Amino acid sequence: MSVVPKECKLPSATPIHPPQRFLFGPGPTQVDERVYQAMSQPIVGHLDAYFLRLNEEIQQMLRVVFGTENPLTFVISGTGSGGMEAAISNFVEAGSKVAVLANGYFCDRMTEMATRQGAEVVRFEKAWGEVFGDDEAAEFIERERPRTVLYVHAETSTGARQQGKAICTAAHKVDALVIADVVTSLGAMPVQVDETGIDIAYSCTQKGLSCPPGLAPITVSPRAAERMNARTKPNRSWYFDLKLLNDYYNLSHRYHHTASISLFYALHEALRLILEEGVQNRWVRHRRCHVEFVKGIEALGLKMHVANPEHRVINLNTPCVPAGVDEAKVRKTLLDEHGIEIMGGFGPLAGKIFRIGVMGPLATEAHVATFLQQFGKAMGK
Amino acid sequence: MSVVPKECKLPSATPIHPPQRFLFGPGPTQVDERVYQAMSQPIVGHLDAYFLRLNEEIQQMLRVVFGTENPLTFVISGTGSGGMEAAISNFVEAGSKVAVLANGYFCDRMTEMATRQGAEVVRFEKAWGEVFGDDEAAEFIERERPRTVLYVHAETSTGARQQGKAICTAAHKVDALVIADVVTSLGAMPVQVDETGIDIAYSCTQKGLSCPPGLAPITVSPRAAERMNARTKPNRSWYFDLKLLNDYYNLSHRYHHTASISLFYALHEALRLILEEGVQNRWVRHRRCHVEFVKGIEALGLKMHVANPEHRVINLNTPCVPAGVDEAKVRKTLLDEHGIEIMGGFGPLAGKIFRIGVMGPLATEAHVATFLQQFGKAMGK
Repeated sequence: MSVVPKECKLPSATPIHPPQRFLFGPGPTQVDERVYQAMSQPIVGHLDAYFLRLNEEIQQMLRVVFGTENPLTFVISGTGSGGMEAAISNFVEAGSKVAVLANGYFCDRMTEMATRQGAEVVRFEKAWGEVFGDDEAAEFIERERPRTVLYVHAETSTGARQQGKAICTAAHKVDALVIADVVTSLGAMPVQVDETGIDIAYSCTQKGLSCPPGLAPITVSPRAAERMNARTKPNRSWYFDLKLLNDYYNLSHRYHHTASISLFYALHEALRLILEEGVQNRWVRHRRCHVEFVKGIEALGLKMHVANPEHRVINLNTPCVPAGVDEAKVRKTLLDEHGIEIMGGFGPLAGKIFRIGVMGPLATEAHVATFLQQFGKAMGK
Repeated sequence: MSVVPKECKLPSATPIHPPQRFLFGPGPTQVDERVYQAMSQPIVGHLDAYFLRLNEEIQQMLRVVFGTENPLTFVISGTGSGGMEAAISNFVEAGSKVAVLANGYFCDRMTEMATRQGAEVVRFEKAWGEVFGDDEAAEFIERERPRTVLYVHAETSTGARQQGKAICTAAHKVDALVIADVVTSLGAMPVQVDETGIDIAYSCTQKGLSCPPGLAPITVSPRAAERMNARTKPNRSWYFDLKLLNDYYNLSHRYHHTASISLFYALHEALRLILEEGVQNRWVRHRRCHVEFVKGIEALGLKMHVANPEHRVINLNTPCVPAGVDEAKVRKTLLDEHGIEIMGGFGPLAGKIFRIGVMGPLATEAHVATFLQQFGKAMGK
């Protein structure tokens, strides 16, 4: 009975001992010690009454953070990109028309997923960092008359925030559903699903919710749930089939998959922390730190890539790289000397912007001040 | 700016404080304290050099446990069912012929996923708990000449173990790929991917690997990788696209999704524990406890559902429920009085079998003895 392949040397792996990091990137972001404590509690079974109650509490807390009364509001055992795939595979059918408001990387990813589902995708394109005005967005949607409209609320690749209300109103006029990517905004900025009129919103756990990555919160309006239930062809994805997931979580509790229990523990505690602080207070704190951050960045002589302050994502800042500065070197210095992680731009913004998240436990005046000091030094200022 | 939906009362959620459980079900199973400790270490970024090195070590350790030299051996940020969907969506194309050796629930789930991909599925069916002989399996495959063959190595719904060698040999004769579900066996029983000839094997973390749920290890033979790379239509699933995942993990390290970092920490430590013990020693320990368990069960007057000892999954036992015994009541007693979780049968085996896992930290003579004592009492013996 030979076991270890002949050529395979037994690998040597040392115990987990991560370097200390200050996660000032677009995510994952810093996690509160209480969340780690919750996450490391012993697991129970995925059909245990304790797990089901926890799951219910998570759903209730998520509704508050999403700003919705949607009964169908829960968590998927996959990352934010899994949330995107769940939204698209459930609500974009082969041959149906999909309209994308495209102004960044994650709009392109949505386009790619919708195309893989066999949809006919039409796009309204803007440069990365610009946003769509109410009238032009409405005109596009009313002209194209799609079945589904896709937009990104807080574009992680550009730092631009897209208003959703006019998009949703126009979409509903032509009987289309709206899928909004709120991956970066949820928990740090107002998302207000019901007030905006969003039909499907999905997110991740490792940005505005300040939790380790691995789960994707999603919410579905009753109107969207109706269309989902009326599908004649099942979702090609069994894993992301929201009907089956709802049945497991909320209806029959029939086994679907074994949920990522430890991450549910973590999210439960992260949401408790958010509600303890107060959702509104948390937004105010993030906005305050954003204002401080921009003031400091401008004092260093940098410009923000998103020119209009009203169009900025408040928890993810994208200052332009000044001429003559090697942004990769700045990032390397910050990481090597201070354990500070920030990210650069990519695609059309490669080398042109920094992407600097100020969120969760790091969204305090003190952390912003320290960051700006180290950042300034790394820039040679 | 209204935030909390009008009707929504602020939910009250208490801190995570799970009841103590002895997880003797089919999974999730008990987790070593060292794994929880590793999991709760502070996260780093998903492109951090530390994470990439860890990921490489995980891949090396997984190759040993899978018994393979396949370069394409890594982990998916989803549960075991996500691993199944990754295997099927990458290797089963619309219109292609798929042959399923169907003798339990997870074969049916594979059938469902393949059907959703638009494949033409042919099935060779057996009663739940029976296995396929070499000749009949080969005959079926050579007659049907499919592109892909699916079978389950250790059927969690029945406790039956399917030999794979004859299946793989026959499949390769007709140029088919073989996908094997090793969700329950990996880490507790010999899987031996290369020796058996399996092309694609996927698993989960919460059974034989004794880790919390949320990741799916997968391995792909060079032959299968070649076919994958030759696909002209992309995988409909972007999230589970193994080409993109391999690029993120191993080639360009280009961002694909934000991996479930904390769960990678946990799996890394779980694999270290396995290699410290020795893969073979671990199998021997599980087999010894299985033999003890069966002896004890038979002493209590119960019969094993899988009659032939050679056909049994060694870490998941399925004794028959004796006439007159209310199995749900037995399970409830064990859970309520001793915190012991076991599962019942479902589908055609509902009410007819218990499903009792003896694996990981609970696979010791002492735990088996204690379990049998409590189980006997709960049965009224």
